[in-house]
Amino acid sequence: MAGGVACGIKAGGGPDLALVATADGRPVPAAGVFTANLAAAAPVQVSRRHLQVTGGRAAAVVLSSGNANAATGSAGLAAAAEMCEVVAAGLAAGAPEPRPEHVLVCQTGLIGIPLPMGPVRAGLPAVVAQRAGDRQAAALAARAIMTTDTVPKEVVVSGDGFSVGAMAKGAAMLAPNMATMLAVLTTDAEAEPGVLHGALARAVAGSFNRLTVDGCTSTNDTVLVLASGRSGVRPAPAALGEALAGACSQLARMMADDAEGATKVAVVRVTGAASDADAERAARRVAESQLVQCSLNGADPYWGRVVSELGSAGVAFDLDRVAVAYGGVTVCSGGIAAAHDEAAVAAHMAGRTVEIACDLGLGAGTAALLTTDLGYGYIDENRTTS
Amino acid sequence: MAGGVACGIKAGGGPDLALVATADGRPVPAAGVFTANLAAAAPVQVSRRHLQVTGGRAAAVVLSSGNANAATGSAGLAAAAEMCEVVAAGLAAGAPEPRPEHVLVCQTGLIGIPLPMGPVRAGLPAVVAQRAGDRQAAALAARAIMTTDTVPKEVVVSGDGFSVGAMAKGAAMLAPNMATMLAVLTTDAEAEPGVLHGALARAVAGSFNRLTVDGCTSTNDTVLVLASGRSGVRPAPAALGEALAGACSQLARMMADDAEGATKVAVVRVTGAASDADAERAARRVAESQLVQCSLNGADPYWGRVVSELGSAGVAFDLDRVAVAYGGVTVCSGGIAAAHDEAAVAAHMAGRTVEIACDLGLGAGTAALLTTDLGYGYIDENRTTS
Repeated sequence: MAGGVACGIKAGGGPDLALVATADGRPVPAAGVFTANLAAAAPVQVSRRHLQVTGGRAAAVVLSSGNANAATGSAGLAAAAEMCEVVAAGLAAGAPEPRPEHVLVCQTGLIGIPLPMGPVRAGLPAVVAQRAGDRQAAALAARAIMTTDTVPKEVVVSGDGFSVGAMAKGAAMLAPNMATMLAVLTTDAEAEPGVLHGALARAVAGSFNRLTVDGCTSTNDTVLVLASGRSGVRPAPAALGEALAGACSQLARMMADDAEGATKVAVVRVTGAASDADAERAARRVAESQLVQCSLNGADPYWGRVVSELGSAGVAFDLDRVAVAYGGVTVCSGGIAAAHDEAAVAAHMAGRTVEIACDLGLGAGTAALLTTDLGYGYIDENRTTS
Repeated sequence: MAGGVACGIKAGGGPDLALVATADGRPVPAAGVFTANLAAAAPVQVSRRHLQVTGGRAAAVVLSSGNANAATGSAGLAAAAEMCEVVAAGLAAGAPEPRPEHVLVCQTGLIGIPLPMGPVRAGLPAVVAQRAGDRQAAALAARAIMTTDTVPKEVVVSGDGFSVGAMAKGAAMLAPNMATMLAVLTTDAEAEPGVLHGALARAVAGSFNRLTVDGCTSTNDTVLVLASGRSGVRPAPAALGEALAGACSQLARMMADDAEGATKVAVVRVTGAASDADAERAARRVAESQLVQCSLNGADPYWGRVVSELGSAGVAFDLDRVAVAYGGVTVCSGGIAAAHDEAAVAAHMAGRTVEIACDLGLGAGTAALLTTDLGYGYIDENRTTS
């Protein structure tokens, strides 16, 4: 079940408080993957602790947008904990469960500003009361976690006898003012918390963690999954992982497509690296390069910058073996310019999606990352918080 | 002696070929520090080899702008070597020295485009013939290495009985299209090549390597020093190092001030880190953050982004101990917002130079880095090479 309301965290009055809960309010196996930022926000600290003390069980996720509740000290921790208590009490309605630690919390917005608890306290009973099991209720939740997103992001993936539903906001490191990505997945599959966590961690590694724009790691990034088991189907871990990965990959692509300020999405693919780790490091260096991103904004196939980033990525590298292609057209081979169809490259660069393929000519390591261009829009979005 | 001419590498016809040479054309102790990029340009490879085979002696440096001669393969290496041969022959005028390996070469400009050797061949005899020992000749050289620089960068530092003169272009990773920094220092001090190299390496570490804008490491970065010994003074290594460091620091600041597209220069200072290495890593993370740089562009004292970068810098970190100040006014203390004089902070942010001080509250490690803001100008400069 889900729901979403406007409680007044956002000055503009938009939807800003969402809930995802099991149908009967009872805790089910759950898992989470959180930001690696050591300045982790209060909701991240609270959710981590709750999953730990319950051994991976949760009945609900409460989410708010407009304030990150990060760098807010002990008051911020108390606020996040109180949100879980109020939701647990509302769902339990006198029953012993869910307990507060069966509720997880996600928040997104500006860092360093005390969370206005007045609006939150008023909104929590409303969103608990409003929750419903239909698509419309899910859409309300997906909308209430949006910040700079222009469209809500929801996806359903069908497995063999089970399904995965998921929503996300963001933004990742793309959507700037509110630099946070949140995603909540639910599935009716049966799965133990440990299996669920392993599947989620692999899914995140291959999707959200392969999306980068500015290399900034948010204080609030959180991906959660709750497995109700209502399908009665217990998929093999691989099948469960595949379904979660499918949902996460679709959401990651939706985030890149909706990245505010971006005019292009680029897939940076590195092959021929000495190892997969080298390939990922090289692809990340290229994908995060401000100069490469500026070239994308100008639709300029300046491969020299790509080669320069590969050479400074800290991976095994031999310039004489490097090849670079845009949209399948090789522009650099053996480390020097290659004669090519310039019109074909220009047409590819002018499109919304650009493919940059780099072969290091050294081994079998491969990796691919999603990124965007860097243009006026990113500056406009990020120069002030007002 | 020095000189600078327009030979025709630059399409616009601006000065693009420079020479720095000893007064009598004889090799003197020399040292160099080069880019760490594994896609090192041909001139970097040639200069490195020349310093190696001569054991650190050089008679001249030939520099060109408008083409980086990087990712140009064996033809590029042959071109850079030929430049040294022609200059050596011109300076030697029939004498056995300087040999070609006594000439070093620096180039800056676009990557991946074959160097037009016709103009270079025509220009080399001209710049050799034109060389002179006065300030005007030095100014011509400083002008001929400019790319997106708006002013030439020269500096003189006086030691105890000796002096250091230096010129630089750039740009570092700041001045985008031609992402290269070059610097040539000369001194009349006496110094063995090993002492010279140690002093130069320390000077570069504390100056050019503490300047970062986009974190991109050029294929061509080169800093060279030639020590003629004509003062007859052999300074203590520490005194020599201090003079070189003074010259490099002044040039680094001039580069930041002249960074095209930038409207502000920021000094990011980290104190209280567990070690100096941690402090530098944290300062670099903050200084290179696109989000922090965008806030600088908007004069927005959004310290939450600074804290977020500190927390993801990969260093020892405890949010509860973190303090952040802009221009000496503390805006965050104990990891949360601190009441402060907002007008004073706004006035500081509106200025050309912004000071961001971060205290991690953990130890005695300190570091400071120079950076700039990220605004429309950077995009304009970098979106296309045309």
